[in-house]
Order: sequence, then C-alpha cells, then structure tokens
Amino acid sequence: MSRFEVRSFSLSLDGYGAGPDQRRDQGLGRGGESLHEWMFATRTWERMQGRDGGETGVDDDYAARGFENVGAWIMGRNMFGPIRGPWPDETWKGWWGDEPPYHCPVFVLTHHARAPLVMAGGTTFHFVTGGIEAALALAREAAAGGDIRLGGGVETIREYLRARLVDALHLAIAPVLLGSGEALFVDLDLPALGYRCTEHATTPKATHVVLTREN
Amino acid sequence: MSRFEVRSFSLSLDGYGAGPDQRRDQGLGRGGESLHEWMFATRTWERMQGRDGGETGVDDDYAARGFENVGAWIMGRNMFGPIRGPWPDETWKGWWGDEPPYHCPVFVLTHHARAPLVMAGGTTFHFVTGGIEAALALAREAAAGGDIRLGGGVETIREYLRARLVDALHLAIAPVLLGSGEALFVDLDLPALGYRCTEHATTPKATHVVLTREN
Repeated sequence: MSRFEVRSFSLSLDGYGAGPDQRRDQGLGRGGESLHEWMFATRTWERMQGRDGGETGVDDDYAARGFENVGAWIMGRNMFGPIRGPWPDETWKGWWGDEPPYHCPVFVLTHHARAPLVMAGGTTFHFVTGGIEAALALAREAAAGGDIRLGGGVETIREYLRARLVDALHLAIAPVLLGSGEALFVDLDLPALGYRCTEHATTPKATHVVLTREN
Repeated sequence: MSRFEVRSFSLSLDGYGAGPDQRRDQGLGRGGESLHEWMFATRTWERMQGRDGGETGVDDDYAARGFENVGAWIMGRNMFGPIRGPWPDETWKGWWGDEPPYHCPVFVLTHHARAPLVMAGGTTFHFVTGGIEAALALAREAAAGGDIRLGGGVETIREYLRARLVDALHLAIAPVLLGSGEALFVDLDLPALGYRCTEHATTPKATHVVLTREN
C-alpha cells in the first residue's frame, strides 16, 4: 500500500516548525526561513528553481527522497496561504506562483469550500472540507499507488499523528532557536502512538531523523 | 569571572531531559537511560568508573569539557535523590555511592535544611534553602574562580534560565523519543532571554549544541 509520510519537515532545536507571526510577507513566521538552510543549499532545491548547481550529500539525499514516488500531497489551509476564514475571492493561488513544485494533486484542508484550482505543471489544488480522514482517502485514490506526502503545518501534522494515520516522518532539526511558534511535540506522546526513531544522520546544517510508526 | 554553565545535559528528540515516572529504582525516569548512550561510550565515562578504555572523539571531547575547570556544582533536590518533602533521616546520600564523581562542593537546592554531607574524594553536599540566587552566590564563592556547573534537573535549569543567570548550555540531543517527562523548552523563549546556538557538532549518538547567552 502507498505510504503516507511527512518528509523534509524542518524543526528548530526548541521544537518549532515555524516561527511566530506568520503572515503574508513572512509565510514561515519570524525566523522561520532559518530552519530551511539545509534545504536551500541542495541540488534538489536548485533544480526546483530551474537552476543548476547546489550541493549533493546527505542533505540533498533527504531532500530528493522527499519527492520520490509522491502521487499526492495533503496540506493544511495555513500552508496554502495566509488567508483565514471564508475565501474572499479566488485570487489567492498559493505561495508558489503559477507553477507550484508539486506536479500532482494537492489536497488542502479547509472549512471553506472552493472549486479546484488547476495550475501549470500538473498541480491541482483540491479543497477538502470533510476533515483529515476524507482528505487522506481522496489523496490515496488520486495517488493511484504512489505515496502521499503530508506537507504541514504543524497543527495538521499533529492531527494526523494523533489519529495514527502517518506512517513515517522525516524531520530535519536545524541548529537554531526560535523561542516561540508552532511546537510539534508538546503533549504528543509519540512512543505511545507507536513511533520510534529508525534513522539518524547528521550534517553541519541539520540532524535528520526518521520516526516510523511500528504498530 | 567564572562561568555558570549547563554541560553534557542530554535531551530526547522531543525535548525531554528525563523520562516519566522518576523514582528510586529509575532515577532518570522511564527510558531516561537511553538519553545518555553517547556518554556511556566515552573514555571520560570509563575513567569516572575507574576503568580503562572507552571511545575518544567528539562525544568524549564534550564529556571531558564538562568537567574542565569546575569548582562547584549546583543541582536540584530531584537530581540529588528521589525523596520529596522533609528529610526523614540522614541515610540518603545521593545516587552516587560513597565517592561521588563531583570532587568539589555541590550545592543542592531544597526547601528543607540539612547539615552538609562530606563524602569521600572531595565532594561535599551543601543543602541550600535560600533559593537559586543564594545557591549561585555560595557556589561562586566556593568555586574560587573556577566555573560552576549546573547539573539539573530540567525544572532547576529552567528556573536559572528564566532568571538569565546561565552563561551557556551544552545539550546533547539523543536520537530517541521519550513521549513524556520533563520538557526543557516549553514556554521558554530562549532567543528572547538572549540565547543563540553558537556551536553544533554531530556524532552517530548525539547532536551536540551549545547555547550561549549573548546579552
């Protein structure tokens, strides 16, 4: 069966997946960009921007694995955009320009219905109002045997973890402190939910761990 | 001036410095031993047990640095022992046997007065009821120019951090999940308290970071 995984999700040392004060001109929150330095240096990232170059090695291996065999994505409303409440109109089309880096169906969790949004390069955003299990069922069907990657944000990941639906998480812990923001681990007993650290690799820019659900 | 530092303090990936259910036969809490695997393999640890052998390298360098120039220690009551409330008698003398590994004055924070306890090998436990600042003043005097090492537990470290009294923390993040226990970072805004990550080194057993207060 296809796997449902969080991949390349960056965290600060103090456990935050995004900084405080997320807003339109600061989608990752204050200081949030610093979590992703390990990714910005990779060849995988450069290729996503249509450029040559970038580093290979452990960081790049994880970045590349993040996109392998992905047939669909799921993300929370906050990862799709800074707009809260009902959609005022159809102008917001995500943070990623006309050709988003997904190239497959993306299921966006929201309380507010909206027509699917077809973008260049194979990405279609589908807006799901039926909750996390409905989104996963739709994504699994759309992925047609491929894996489903869960993007974020933190609260969406925590919901799926609590429901024991995530097969594995690859986290990249950056050597930075954020101090506040969205905390991934607080009041979430991952061992009790069946998770164990099954992979651990380190680079100057990040500590990569994979947490796998084993029961 | 002598420095006041947390050194070789182990944390789980999910931010716990000890496991749940700390008690007499499980001083580090359930699963807590697994946080210290990086230390147990080192030459420094072997020497502390009076044995030869053990690994050298980054883990050992940090373990050894932990003991350099230390003139006094401070620890919380829970690190000294599992007894809560008034001392029932004088029989509990710490977890460490007749010759504890401190070899200098150790100031134990407690609400319950007790006479100093002189142990073999140069360790004397002093019980301080005047609070964290009083303990630090006493330790600084006793250290006579040496550094003061803050042991733990988590709550004691958090108190000193909130008071902006700690100069630096060396944390060793082990690739394990504990799920619950004593969380170091929750509701503690380290950047706002002046801390920044100033050192980052990784090994197969731990991610070592040093957080330094810069203002």
